[in-house]
Amino acid sequence: MIETRIKSAIRDVPDFPLKGVLFKDLTPVLKDTKLCQEITEEFAKRLRGTGLDAIAGIESRGFLFGLMLAARLGLPFLLIRKKGKLPYKPITINYQLEYGSSQLEMQGGDVHPGWKVLIHDDVLATGGTASAAAKLVLSQEGQIAGFLFLMELKFLTGREKIQELSQNIISLASY
Amino acid sequence: MIETRIKSAIRDVPDFPLKGVLFKDLTPVLKDTKLCQEITEEFAKRLRGTGLDAIAGIESRGFLFGLMLAARLGLPFLLIRKKGKLPYKPITINYQLEYGSSQLEMQGGDVHPGWKVLIHDDVLATGGTASAAAKLVLSQEGQIAGFLFLMELKFLTGREKIQELSQNIISLASY
Repeated sequence: MIETRIKSAIRDVPDFPLKGVLFKDLTPVLKDTKLCQEITEEFAKRLRGTGLDAIAGIESRGFLFGLMLAARLGLPFLLIRKKGKLPYKPITINYQLEYGSSQLEMQGGDVHPGWKVLIHDDVLATGGTASAAAKLVLSQEGQIAGFLFLMELKFLTGREKIQELSQNIISLASY
Repeated sequence: MIETRIKSAIRDVPDFPLKGVLFKDLTPVLKDTKLCQEITEEFAKRLRGTGLDAIAGIESRGFLFGLMLAARLGLPFLLIRKKGKLPYKPITINYQLEYGSSQLEMQGGDVHPGWKVLIHDDVLATGGTASAAAKLVLSQEGQIAGFLFLMELKFLTGREKIQELSQNIISLASY
């Protein structure tokens, strides 16, 4: 089962990024080629029947499986980046973090009006970043076809935050 | 020819990131699935006969084609990130930028001694980042099997800077 395979690969790193936090490190997954291919196939399988026009990946770990999945499904891949990195007609959203705030951008014209866009990142935590990414798509008259993550940290209740934007929330491994 | 196809997709954005700079925006390439697949195949073709043990991708645009190519070739994918983002035994290198300095990190144990590692990023500019990335691999007793880029800005002479680390420098489109 893919969840067991992913969890076996994940490395627990204590006290990162802060003392007392047990960080779930996904980088060993990337060293297991066969698992990477299985993850891409599983993503494709779970998305079957979801009408999609594009996949948007959130910088920077959402770029990893994002482009591979877009290529697998024959869909355009759109970048959601931190402020100041996208050159062409950037559209900006401000959002709250636990401490302070942050900003994300997409390029104007990336989302065609009416497009069904899937939002992808590696981890669903509090949902703040995924929610901001979705609002960037909505601001360009796109629709949210769903959210797709490799891993979900359920105790941070991000699912509750984003389900008002789409009910279609997929994650392959949960803690 | 792949170079013509890539150059047709690239969008020129004037005055980014600074006034007077004509930025070569690669994001339209990512919206053309067929081109993304062709790029991956071309990378694979150019690397034929290069004995490789792993591909290291530089954050964040080196993550895009990096993982796709690693999966295509059946190789482990290693992350080279900005300081403070990798949780496990990070190894740090400081390097000079045009103005000021920056830092990159890899995780300890990612490179096995003697491994032949390919360094990948989207653009070769001054070569400062690629050179620092290679030195992280060397510091773990890895070997540099080559450098692979989507695009090269020849007038910034990055090739001269990195050829002392490997003669095998591949880019699909040059300006």
